Amino acid sequence: MRRFSRAFHEYPSISKLLVVFSVSGGGLVAYAESNPGAQAVIETDAESKRKKVVVLGTGWAGTSFLKNLKHPSYDVQVISPRNYFAFTPLLPSVTCGTVEARSIVEPIRRIIEKKNMDIRFQEAECIRIDAENKKVYCRTNNGFHLHGKEEFVVDYDYLVIAIGARSNTFNIPGVEENCHFLKEVEDAQKIRRSVIDCFERANLSNLSDDERKRILHFVVVGGGPTGVEFAAELYDFINEDLVKLYPRVEELVSITLLEAADHILNMFDKRITEFAESKFRREGIDLKTGSMVVKVSDTEITTKERSGEVSSIPYGMAVWSTGIGTRPVIRDFMKQVGQANRRALATDEWLRVEGTDSVYALGDCATINQRKVMEDIAAIFSKADRDNSGTLTAGEAREVISDICERYPQVELHLKNKKLKDIVDLLKESKGDIQKEAIELNIEEFKAALSQVDSQMKNLPATAQVAAQQGTYLADCFNRMEECEKYPEGPLRFRGSGRHRFRPFRYKHLGQFAPLGGEQTAAQLPGDWVSIGRSSQWLWYSVYASKQVSWRTRMLVVSDWGRRFIFGRDSSRI
Amino acid sequence: MRRFSRAFHEYPSISKLLVVFSVSGGGLVAYAESNPGAQAVIETDAESKRKKVVVLGTGWAGTSFLKNLKHPSYDVQVISPRNYFAFTPLLPSVTCGTVEARSIVEPIRRIIEKKNMDIRFQEAECIRIDAENKKVYCRTNNGFHLHGKEEFVVDYDYLVIAIGARSNTFNIPGVEENCHFLKEVEDAQKIRRSVIDCFERANLSNLSDDERKRILHFVVVGGGPTGVEFAAELYDFINEDLVKLYPRVEELVSITLLEAADHILNMFDKRITEFAESKFRREGIDLKTGSMVVKVSDTEITTKERSGEVSSIPYGMAVWSTGIGTRPVIRDFMKQVGQANRRALATDEWLRVEGTDSVYALGDCATINQRKVMEDIAAIFSKADRDNSGTLTAGEAREVISDICERYPQVELHLKNKKLKDIVDLLKESKGDIQKEAIELNIEEFKAALSQVDSQMKNLPATAQVAAQQGTYLADCFNRMEECEKYPEGPLRFRGSGRHRFRPFRYKHLGQFAPLGGEQTAAQLPGDWVSIGRSSQWLWYSVYASKQVSWRTRMLVVSDWGRRFIFGRDSSRI
Repeated sequence: MRRFSRAFHEYPSISKLLVVFSVSGGGLVAYAESNPGAQAVIETDAESKRKKVVVLGTGWAGTSFLKNLKHPSYDVQVISPRNYFAFTPLLPSVTCGTVEARSIVEPIRRIIEKKNMDIRFQEAECIRIDAENKKVYCRTNNGFHLHGKEEFVVDYDYLVIAIGARSNTFNIPGVEENCHFLKEVEDAQKIRRSVIDCFERANLSNLSDDERKRILHFVVVGGGPTGVEFAAELYDFINEDLVKLYPRVEELVSITLLEAADHILNMFDKRITEFAESKFRREGIDLKTGSMVVKVSDTEITTKERSGEVSSIPYGMAVWSTGIGTRPVIRDFMKQVGQANRRALATDEWLRVEGTDSVYALGDCATINQRKVMEDIAAIFSKADRDNSGTLTAGEAREVISDICERYPQVELHLKNKKLKDIVDLLKESKGDIQKEAIELNIEEFKAALSQVDSQMKNLPATAQVAAQQGTYLADCFNRMEECEKYPEGPLRFRGSGRHRFRPFRYKHLGQFAPLGGEQTAAQLPGDWVSIGRSSQWLWYSVYASKQVSWRTRMLVVSDWGRRFIFGRDSSRI
Repeated sequence: MRRFSRAFHEYPSISKLLVVFSVSGGGLVAYAESNPGAQAVIETDAESKRKKVVVLGTGWAGTSFLKNLKHPSYDVQVISPRNYFAFTPLLPSVTCGTVEARSIVEPIRRIIEKKNMDIRFQEAECIRIDAENKKVYCRTNNGFHLHGKEEFVVDYDYLVIAIGARSNTFNIPGVEENCHFLKEVEDAQKIRRSVIDCFERANLSNLSDDERKRILHFVVVGGGPTGVEFAAELYDFINEDLVKLYPRVEELVSITLLEAADHILNMFDKRITEFAESKFRREGIDLKTGSMVVKVSDTEITTKERSGEVSSIPYGMAVWSTGIGTRPVIRDFMKQVGQANRRALATDEWLRVEGTDSVYALGDCATINQRKVMEDIAAIFSKADRDNSGTLTAGEAREVISDICERYPQVELHLKNKKLKDIVDLLKESKGDIQKEAIELNIEEFKAALSQVDSQMKNLPATAQVAAQQGTYLADCFNRMEECEKYPEGPLRFRGSGRHRFRPFRYKHLGQFAPLGGEQTAAQLPGDWVSIGRSSQWLWYSVYASKQVSWRTRMLVVSDWGRRFIFGRDSSRI
C-alpha cells in the first residue's frame, strides 16, 4: 500500500520546483528530447564477452536502475509484463479521472531508446527463477496466438529482481473476489469505471431507496496514504462533479473508511493525522478506526471491532488498500535460496539476495536485512583491537569508527539520537566516566556500550522513493564494478579480510505527501517540518510535475490538472 | 461501416472553421458553459399529463434529437448502454492513439444537464420493444450486484429508436471470434492494445522470423472510409512511432487491405479513389481488390479472388469493417410490426416506423422507405385535376408542383438532373412539344411523363451526418407538434385529405472527408468539389474541432493533436 505513498525521489532542486509555472516553455526542449540521435549499438564480437544483466520489472526500482546504468560492458535484457513505467504516486488521482491513466505512463522502450546502450525489452512475466543454473523462465502475458511458444528461458550473469509486490488480502475470505485493489494502472481504471457504474446503477428506476443507498456506499479499507488519498479523491469527485449530474441520488451517497489501527496515516506526524481525521469527519466521511475486516461478500463487509462486536455493512464498492504481500514467484525463489521461513526476500546492505552471489533484489519485493552489531561484536572488537591487547583504547576506537558507522548505520543513528559526538563518547558514557580521556574497554564492556544500537534498526518503507534510490544505487555499483573490484571503496570487512567493494545502500528520506482532497495536502519534510493546506498542495503539484519521467507525461499531467480545474472530471463510462 | 465516414453535420459557418486557430481563447467561454444555472425542473401535477418520450440510444441521432428538443411538454427518458456520446468520425484516430478515447466522448448527462428540461437517463440496454402495449423492456449491462433487478420496463407515448447498427460479418465463419470491429469506443481501444501486443509479441526472443512476420501482418477487411482511414492511421503509427521503438522488427511489418469490389472508397469521386490507391501502393500497403474473405481462423484469413482462386494468408491482427447489420432487438421488432421480410427497419419520410403510430426510428438502425411516385400516380393525378376533367393542364400542374416536389423529392432531383425549370417543362417534354404553352395530359400521358423519376431514389448513407440531421429534424417536429397539429405545414396528402402535419425529412449533404494518412486528406464537397492534400487536412482539423459537442472535448481533441505532433503517439499497453 505504502508503495504509492507520495514520494519524490532523488534530489529535487528548487529550479525544478518551479517547473509547473514554466512548463509551457518546455515545448521546444521536449521536441528536441523526443528526437535523440541515439541508435541501437551495433552488435559486435565483444557481445559474447559482455556480462548478461537481466532486469525483472519496470516499476520505480527497475526503471531507475535502467535510467542510471551507463557502463557499456553489459548486455541488458528487461522483462516485465508491462511495457511502460507508471508514475504510481498519481494512481489515486487516476481512479477519479483527475489525471488520465495515459498521462502517468511512459513506454519503457522510449526510456531505453534514449540511452546509448544495447538494452532489449521483452513483454513477459517471470514465472520462475533458477538461481542455480542462472536462468529465468518467462511467459508472455497475452500469447493466445503463439501456439505453445508462450514460454521462454533467459540466461543471466547478474539478475536484478524489481518486480514489486502484490496487494495483501491477509487471506480474508471474499476480498480477492469482491474488492478493488490499487496497485496497477488497470486497477485505477477499473475503480473509475466502477464508481460510475455504481452511480448509473443507483439511477435505475426499479430499485428501492435502500438498494440505492447500498449501491452508493463506498468503502475504503486501509487508512494509509493510498486509502486516504483515494477516499479524498472520491469525496471530491462526488461532490464537485457527480452530484451535479446525478441530482436524484445526491442524498444517498456515503463513504466509509475502515482502519484496523487507532488512527489513519499513522506513519505520519500526529498533527497530520489529526488534521486528516477532523477534515474527514467534517465532510461526513465515516471514519471507523479499530475496525478489522473479517469477511467480504458481494454486498456486505463484515467487521470486528476491538470490543469483539461483529457487524455487517452493506456496500456497493470497496477498495482494499491495507498493505503489500509477496508475489508467488518470489515465494518460490525464497525456498530455493534458503529463505523459506522469512516474511520477505532478504538482501544484504548491497541489495544482493542472501544465499546467492549474483542476484540483486530491490524495491517492494525485497527488504534489506540490516546486519546487527551484536552479531558481529567479537569480530568488530578484534579488528578494532589492533595491538591484540584484549582491550580497546580511545585511539583504536576512533580509527575504525567511520567503518563501523558505514557498515552499521544504526550506530550513527544511535549517536545522533543520543546527541553524542562520536563513538568514544558512547564508550565513555558506558564506562560512566565522561571526563577521562584515556579509556580502555574489554570485550564485555564494549558489548555493553553498543548493546542499545541495534534497536535503531528499522525496515525501509515500501515507497517509490526507496525503490528509486535503490535503483540508482545499484546502477551506480554496476557502472563502477570493475573499478571498485580493483579499488574497493566500501567499509572494512569485519568478518573477513580487506574491504567491501562498495559502500552499502543508504536511504535518504526526502519527505512525504498526503493529499487530503479539496486542494489541501499535508507534507512532512525531513526535520519534522510539517505543512498542511493549500500551499502544500501547490508544493505537491510542483514536485509531482517536476518528478515526471518525461516531458510528454509532464505536459499531460499538468494539462490534466488544468482540464480538471476548468471542466471538472469526466464521467463517461469508458 | 459508413457510419463513421467523415461527416460534418448541420451548418458549418466560416467563423467556426477558424476555431482551431482560436481555440485557446475558449477557456472563459467554456468555463461559463460548464456552470449553467439550469436545475432539474421540479416535478408538478402537470407531469402526469405530459407525454412520455422514450429515446433509445445516445449516438449521433439520439443525441442530436436530445440537444434540439426544447418543448417542455414532454417527459423524456433516455435509455442507452453507454452513458456518453462518442464523436465516432474520430474513432479511427483513437485506434492508434492520435486522439485519446476520452477526448471524443461527452457524458450524456452533461448534455442533458445544460437543458432546462426534465430528462432522465438510465444506463441500460433495450432488449425488447412491445409496440402494442407501448412498453420497452430494458436490462442493465453491468448488474452483477443487483440480484435479479437487472430488468425493468418503461412505458412510452412516443418512442424514438436510435440504437444504431452492429458490424456485419455476413455470417462468414471465424469473423466474430477473430476479427476486431470498429464501431464502439471500446473497439478502438482494443485495437490499439492489440497493435502494441503484436509488436511486443514479435519481439519475444523464442520466435522464428516467419512467426514474427505473421504476427506483424495487419489485415484490414473493407475498403470503405473507415477501413481506409484505419489502414492509413496504422501505417503512420508504425512508421512515425513504432519503428523507432521496435527497430529489430521494422523489416517484418506489413499491412494488407482487402476489398471485395474493384476499388476502395467507391462511394467517393474517382479522383479520390485513384489518389488513395496510388498513395497506398507507393507506401507498400498491399491493396487487394476483388478479394472476398470466406473464412477467418486465428492465424489465417482465407480469401477468394474473382478468378475463383482460394488462398490463405497468415496474419497477426485483422480489423473487419465491411458494413453494417441490424441489431437483434430491431430484427425482433420488425417481426412485430410486419416488416419481417425487410432488410432494415423502414420508416416513412417523417421517420415514423411503418406499421406503428408512435414509434420513430432514425440513424443507422432505420432506412427511409421513400414513397414511389408510380405507387400514388392515380391519386396525384386526381388531386391535381381540380376540375375533374380527366386531363391535367399546365395551370393545374403548377398549382400542385410544390406539394409534389415536397412529398416526392425524387421529382425535384429528376428535374434538376434534366436541367428542367419546372414540372410543366417535364410534361411538355414528354408530349414532345416544348414550345406550346397550353398543354393537357390524360392520366396515361402523366404517368409516362413521370415514369423515370423514381429511378432517382437512393437510400441515404449510414453516416453521422444523416443521423444528426434526422435527430434535429425529429426534435423540431416534436417541438412544434401542437402547433402543426392545428396548422399543418406539410405537403398535400395525395392519398387522403388535408395536409401532412410536417414537411418530410430532407437530407442536405455537406460533403465528406477521407483522411489518407501522412497529413493528407481527401475532401469531397457538394457540387463535386474535390480537394486532396495538406490543405484538406487542415480543413479536416478545423471542421472536426468545430463540430465537437462541447468545449471540453474540443480542447482535448486539439491538445491531443498538438501532443501527437510534438511527442508522437504513446505505445504503452494500457
